[in-house]
Amino acid sequence: MQSLRFTAGTTSEGVVERDFTLGEIPGVLWSPESGPGRAPLVLMGHGGGTHKKWPAMTGRARLLVTGCGFHVACIDSPGHGDRPRTAHDEREIAELYRARAAGEPEGPVVVRYNAHLAERAVPEWQATLDALQELAEIGAGGPVGYYGLNMGTAIGVPLTAAEPRITAAVFGLHWPDALAEPARRITVPVEFALQWDDEHIPRAAGLALFDAFASKEKTLHVNTGRHKELPRFEADSAVRFFARHLLPAPVPPALT
Amino acid sequence: MQSLRFTAGTTSEGVVERDFTLGEIPGVLWSPESGPGRAPLVLMGHGGGTHKKWPAMTGRARLLVTGCGFHVACIDSPGHGDRPRTAHDEREIAELYRARAAGEPEGPVVVRYNAHLAERAVPEWQATLDALQELAEIGAGGPVGYYGLNMGTAIGVPLTAAEPRITAAVFGLHWPDALAEPARRITVPVEFALQWDDEHIPRAAGLALFDAFASKEKTLHVNTGRHKELPRFEADSAVRFFARHLLPAPVPPALT
Repeated sequence: MQSLRFTAGTTSEGVVERDFTLGEIPGVLWSPESGPGRAPLVLMGHGGGTHKKWPAMTGRARLLVTGCGFHVACIDSPGHGDRPRTAHDEREIAELYRARAAGEPEGPVVVRYNAHLAERAVPEWQATLDALQELAEIGAGGPVGYYGLNMGTAIGVPLTAAEPRITAAVFGLHWPDALAEPARRITVPVEFALQWDDEHIPRAAGLALFDAFASKEKTLHVNTGRHKELPRFEADSAVRFFARHLLPAPVPPALT
Repeated sequence: MQSLRFTAGTTSEGVVERDFTLGEIPGVLWSPESGPGRAPLVLMGHGGGTHKKWPAMTGRARLLVTGCGFHVACIDSPGHGDRPRTAHDEREIAELYRARAAGEPEGPVVVRYNAHLAERAVPEWQATLDALQELAEIGAGGPVGYYGLNMGTAIGVPLTAAEPRITAAVFGLHWPDALAEPARRITVPVEFALQWDDEHIPRAAGLALFDAFASKEKTLHVNTGRHKELPRFEADSAVRFFARHLLPAPVPPALT
């Protein structure tokens, strides 16, 4: 088994940010500056065309670390961030830009290319989780969550279906075509987001993916707005979801 | 205009609870024990067969008062709580029990009877709001929210459509038959809850009612479970919704 190699670190407003590599994979681990010995871990998958330190990733990591004391890890997906693109990556990205410029639906290209990336990314995430659980402050056997929208869902759904260590997940903003099958094998609690006026993903497609999860506990959050207009308060909701499912003491229940 | 007459009061753990009457209508006003001079008001509608001090009402009121410093008011709906039933009420309630015992769908009776109750309740709520806004600690012109599920939605949707003083509303768990029309006249922010496995309200019916609201900002929360299994964390979500929309300073936004 490979081990994490930490390459740089900074601390800002209570959050320790440590860059690492695992073989060829660059990643980042955010942790509370101080706190109890061990804490739950949330794996975060970034969206297509972005990378592990995209503002949405650093913002969500800060909420999870400062709000719940979690460790949060993100790795660059294949062909993204600091990682090289293959010839196949280049062809698919060119095809996506061509479809977009021609006013054709992006869905067929995104679904196909993200499914390909997921095949490469799932074993990388599993090796990363192995290595993260070697760290004393995380450890094996503790609670693990997964949080990823868009391409982060395309990778996260098959990862969560394959990985019994992940016990709660936040997904959203993707099509059911390649994901309904692994979703039907997921039974852990899920929170799923879709946009009611998504110009790429039809309402019925988003609802079908939500419906596919076999989880006894699952929640759908629909908001008005287009694909990229997910409200910022959904990140706060994800933090509360992970607090409910990963922390040992439940949040005091409110009467409904 | 009639004035509120306060008839009894208690204080418990920071929440002042004052019973009142407005003519024939019995109500309750929950307020913070201490706080700033004026604060926003949330009107709460109770569900069918319950009353103004049902545990769900007192629990939600406590969350809103202690979490946000709001005033919260609930009145007994016509034929409910401390109010007399008309012969029409008795016939409809008997018909509901008959349908239930016969294993017939409850929807047709509930939709029809709740629409009748809403016609009686909307002017009562408007008179109650007039009187509440005469109180120095609420005042006219301040923010007003409405929060009601089930029958509280059947009354609250036409109330909110008719009442420009209501600027944000939480609804859920009802059919579109009588409510889609007034919903199409509602433009204020709405949070709407439905149950994915509701044995009374088909999924398509719940989604159609959500879709009908003309609000630019609306959020749908779907959870697994049957009609009465709405998770308790949805009450916490409603508190945050009202905090975002009724408090002058927005909650610090989190990065998505």
